[in-house]
Amino acid sequence: MNTTQSQPVIGILNISDRASAGIYEDIPGKACADLLREWLKTPFELDYKVIPDEQPVIEAELKRMADQIHCALIVTTGGTGPAARDVTPEATIAVCDKLLPGFGELMRNTSLRYVATAILSRQTAGTRGSTLIINLPGKPKAIKENLEAVFPAVPYCIDLIGGPYLETNESAMKAFRPPNN
Amino acid sequence: MNTTQSQPVIGILNISDRASAGIYEDIPGKACADLLREWLKTPFELDYKVIPDEQPVIEAELKRMADQIHCALIVTTGGTGPAARDVTPEATIAVCDKLLPGFGELMRNTSLRYVATAILSRQTAGTRGSTLIINLPGKPKAIKENLEAVFPAVPYCIDLIGGPYLETNESAMKAFRPPNN
Amino acid sequence: MNTTQSQPVIGILNISDRASAGIYEDIPGKACADLLREWLKTPFELDYKVIPDEQPVIEAELKRMADQIHCALIVTTGGTGPAARDVTPEATIAVCDKLLPGFGELMRNTSLRYVATAILSRQTAGTRGSTLIINLPGKPKAIKENLEAVFPAVPYCIDLIGGPYLETNESAMKAFRPPNN
Repeated sequence: MNTTQSQPVIGILNISDRASAGIYEDIPGKACADLLREWLKTPFELDYKVIPDEQPVIEAELKRMADQIHCALIVTTGGTGPAARDVTPEATIAVCDKLLPGFGELMRNTSLRYVATAILSRQTAGTRGSTLIINLPGKPKAIKENLEAVFPAVPYCIDLIGGPYLETNESAMKAFRPPNN
Repeated sequence: MNTTQSQPVIGILNISDRASAGIYEDIPGKACADLLREWLKTPFELDYKVIPDEQPVIEAELKRMADQIHCALIVTTGGTGPAARDVTPEATIAVCDKLLPGFGELMRNTSLRYVATAILSRQTAGTRGSTLIINLPGKPKAIKENLEAVFPAVPYCIDLIGGPYLETNESAMKAFRPPNN
Repeated sequence: MNTTQSQPVIGILNISDRASAGIYEDIPGKACADLLREWLKTPFELDYKVIPDEQPVIEAELKRMADQIHCALIVTTGGTGPAARDVTPEATIAVCDKLLPGFGELMRNTSLRYVATAILSRQTAGTRGSTLIINLPGKPKAIKENLEAVFPAVPYCIDLIGGPYLETNESAMKAFRPPNN
């Protein structure tokens, strides 16, 4: 399908009213990019956006990144809490074909080691076609803790949904692929 | 919004066919009230009801407590198991704007330390407007174990959804609020 | 209800395109049968099927086993991953009256001790009338790890939904029933 693309594309979607208005610098998105560059051996391109906490805007952007850009992976940052403006999980659920509840469970469990308020995150993950979508929190420290916890399963997940084969830098991040699959 | 109220209100909803018929004493509701009085430094009023396991009745009561009484928090007890009459989670899901799956996950995980049947509880939590709703089990011992596990995140959750600022008695219950928020 | 049946019936549903086409032997189904025979003291009959990963076929088979055969328990194997052909959870959710999220949470948590890709499993459990349905993975080793983790709660769950009283061989599998219930 990606006949015109030489490299896998990963989408980073920073969802934040204040960052999209230019009030805050886009630190969460940069944190994601740095981690992906450190962990992935396979060269990849980034598709990068900062948008407000508006459900239709988030859904449209997720669809564009999945259906037109054919991202192997999209990570979102922010908008996963219980506040009225937090609608990232709602948008993710709306566009996904299949939800993967194990991602949210493991990310919350991991964050619980650091903060009792980890249970307030409604972050989830799922697939849309051959794209894996993962919701991450908004703070760089929590982004790292969360993405580090689930990333070992990401390359194999992308294999299973028909995306590109991603290799990790084993010294920084060990991906797990079951034998005989 | 609560211009006429001097104190935050917390709703306790004991959902039990037998307690509402007067066959059993309302021990679960009293257990919740005792814990809240022990843990909360901020003075609060209680709104207190014992109702049968009827989904429309539960939904109506949750809506009344949230929309008319403007409860900061509603805790329900009972009706979370797999039996046909257990419909508390269904009613909660029906009235909530946002679900918070991390509460149910942590409460089941906590109960699993004591009983293998913890996985049978379908208890959840969520928000309706500025009200946080949390399902608890029916037995006082399990109520304490469950509410103790999630309560450190409750005051900050209520901050985020626009409810009143609740302070805890730090010696009995340490609430967690992230710095710089 | 099961007036014509002398023994409880347990359904085993192996969901696999390749096993149903005869390409693979039905090892997962046999693994389930062996575990159930080892763990259960109460004599039981098996209803046993191998079917392809087709959601309408899975739903029809779950309904037949629950509504016509009055299975106390149905275990499915396979079809719980993120791939397009994996639709066992979708079929299970579609036929269940009540979902029991604690089963999937505990099974994923258990599998995480062995493989990082445990979070890719979307397996769930739920009830349809007096039948408990549990999704298991496809590999015998993972089937054992998963079913062993949740089985202590299975007999009491079946009590609560009005199914037959199942006793376990205590030396191999300890069922848990709360006192005074």
